[in-house]
Amino acid sequence: MQNAESSALLVAGWHRMSYVFGDQSSMSQELQKHILKVHSNARNAITKGKYLVFGVGSTQLLSAAVFALSLNSSSPARVVAESPYYPVYKTQTDFFETVHFEFKGDALLMKNTSDSAGNVIEFVTSPNNPDGNLRKAVLQGVSVNAIYDHAYYWPHFSAIPAPADEDIMIFTISKLTGHAGSRFGWALVKDKDVYLNMQKYVSLAEFSISRDTQLRALQLLKVVLKGDGREIFHFAYEKMRDRWEKISQTVSLSKRFTVQDIPPQYCNFFEKVRGPSPAYIWLKCEREEDTNCSAVLLAANIIGRSGSLFDAEDRYVRLSLLKSDDDFNLLLYRLKELVSKEGGADTL
Amino acid sequence: MQNAESSALLVAGWHRMSYVFGDQSSMSQELQKHILKVHSNARNAITKGKYLVFGVGSTQLLSAAVFALSLNSSSPARVVAESPYYPVYKTQTDFFETVHFEFKGDALLMKNTSDSAGNVIEFVTSPNNPDGNLRKAVLQGVSVNAIYDHAYYWPHFSAIPAPADEDIMIFTISKLTGHAGSRFGWALVKDKDVYLNMQKYVSLAEFSISRDTQLRALQLLKVVLKGDGREIFHFAYEKMRDRWEKISQTVSLSKRFTVQDIPPQYCNFFEKVRGPSPAYIWLKCEREEDTNCSAVLLAANIIGRSGSLFDAEDRYVRLSLLKSDDDFNLLLYRLKELVSKEGGADTL
Repeated sequence: MQNAESSALLVAGWHRMSYVFGDQSSMSQELQKHILKVHSNARNAITKGKYLVFGVGSTQLLSAAVFALSLNSSSPARVVAESPYYPVYKTQTDFFETVHFEFKGDALLMKNTSDSAGNVIEFVTSPNNPDGNLRKAVLQGVSVNAIYDHAYYWPHFSAIPAPADEDIMIFTISKLTGHAGSRFGWALVKDKDVYLNMQKYVSLAEFSISRDTQLRALQLLKVVLKGDGREIFHFAYEKMRDRWEKISQTVSLSKRFTVQDIPPQYCNFFEKVRGPSPAYIWLKCEREEDTNCSAVLLAANIIGRSGSLFDAEDRYVRLSLLKSDDDFNLLLYRLKELVSKEGGADTL
Repeated sequence: MQNAESSALLVAGWHRMSYVFGDQSSMSQELQKHILKVHSNARNAITKGKYLVFGVGSTQLLSAAVFALSLNSSSPARVVAESPYYPVYKTQTDFFETVHFEFKGDALLMKNTSDSAGNVIEFVTSPNNPDGNLRKAVLQGVSVNAIYDHAYYWPHFSAIPAPADEDIMIFTISKLTGHAGSRFGWALVKDKDVYLNMQKYVSLAEFSISRDTQLRALQLLKVVLKGDGREIFHFAYEKMRDRWEKISQTVSLSKRFTVQDIPPQYCNFFEKVRGPSPAYIWLKCEREEDTNCSAVLLAANIIGRSGSLFDAEDRYVRLSLLKSDDDFNLLLYRLKELVSKEGGADTL
């Protein structure tokens, strides 16, 4: 009647697949070690003196950080980000809004008013999504806490002027190896209370991070660390730089479109000045009538995300460079075609 | 310079490990089919006409359901559960409290006051954690929405009087196969708007459920469905019934302790009347002076969770029967010892 396999399954579940590992921790020690080693190789973050929190992608950790920073706030903490910014800061903060925090939009607007007193939380994405530029917090002061979203702070996408040493830094495997679907991210947190509250958030939201996901992340980081553990950064940088050069060369022939400027900078990883290699193109339609840039591109079969999603004008559009070679080549081809038609139209 | 493996990793990430599967869904179709088949075999739920939502364990879905049911509530929805209840309902609802809902404790207290108007959300755990009894919602009315937590509604732990057909039903692999650490749960939801809002919750909390976790859940359900796909239920029921019989036999010799009563019931899975096989012992210290039952047990090296955690008196304690044979035998041995000392103490 009973099949050995299904009973073994159940018994294995009860014995070994509980919420915690053998050391009673819900976070794999081995995975923690590998994360620290990857940062040490990439030279992109100071991990010493920081606590590590695992999350379901960086997405969950953004929310966990907002909760942790506002938990004891008597008046609602105001959550801001400098425009253009990653849309999830707004949609997530709005959806999960408690009595302790609320989303207030562009950090620059707050800076330019006298209304900057009280508890403030600033999301700082560096390099920025959508435009790839390195950033620092816009707002300063004892009542301002910054959450540094360093999803793209890898030699793939940006010069690393120095290892980051912020109080709250969030990373994700999604932009390190591309495995977004595994949903694994981590935060490095300096303050013990903030760390404990972020852990509490994760624990109350869903107990712990899937052990299968942790195992997968460990396997991925083992591959990242193979050889001298730096090869993936060389490969990814060259790939992204090559794509950027082809795109910016094409757009430089255009009067209708421009792309963001990213200055060359000294890179702590490559130990030299290096040029841009961003994850996204932040394209601008320069003609006065092209107020809806994504529609202009869509007519040429190019799909992008419109500027207003990033709290910017719709004459901007974000195009992703994180795709297969085939898809990139198609994007480049269509962009070239669009640019080549400009002259014709102008001379009509 | 470049190692083929690390570059292949990155390329594979970008191509195939995105947030979505090939069909653009973030939920594996194959896994969905397997879940429906398991319910059909266990005869424990009507799945037809219901939407399926995946979550990080059932834990996340409890919160998602509260958000979904209260999203458009003008005054805060009051969240209740009949005592004794699973502590997470309170801790989670308190922590994530928005302007749309707040935790209000015991459902019976609300029933017995005139204060039952307005939007109410009742958690109904059936069979109940901690006491294993089947339950129905205490509160009725157009403004009452019940969230049925059916984590234990499997032939392992309870008679299945009929397939459950509630508006919101939550299940988890954690109690089906014991793989709590995989963090995978699902909800069956009747109303389309509630379903869409629960999906929105998951998507804003962390985009989607880890594909590695989904793959693991699929592997587990494939084993569950081997043979006639019913063997795991037979095995688990016999195992749990055997443990319960040994425990209740031991406690029946005691005057100091009693355990919960679970009446035999007709079971739709076994097609006969069957006795209890609960996941937990809900033990009561009957002596007037034993107001702290978990301390009484701890003195005998038995670790349980105290009644007040479940919004009950501390003369109750919950002991888990979900453990290895060795650990169960140790629990039984220590309980027997404790009971055997009673007579000695009484005759002193």
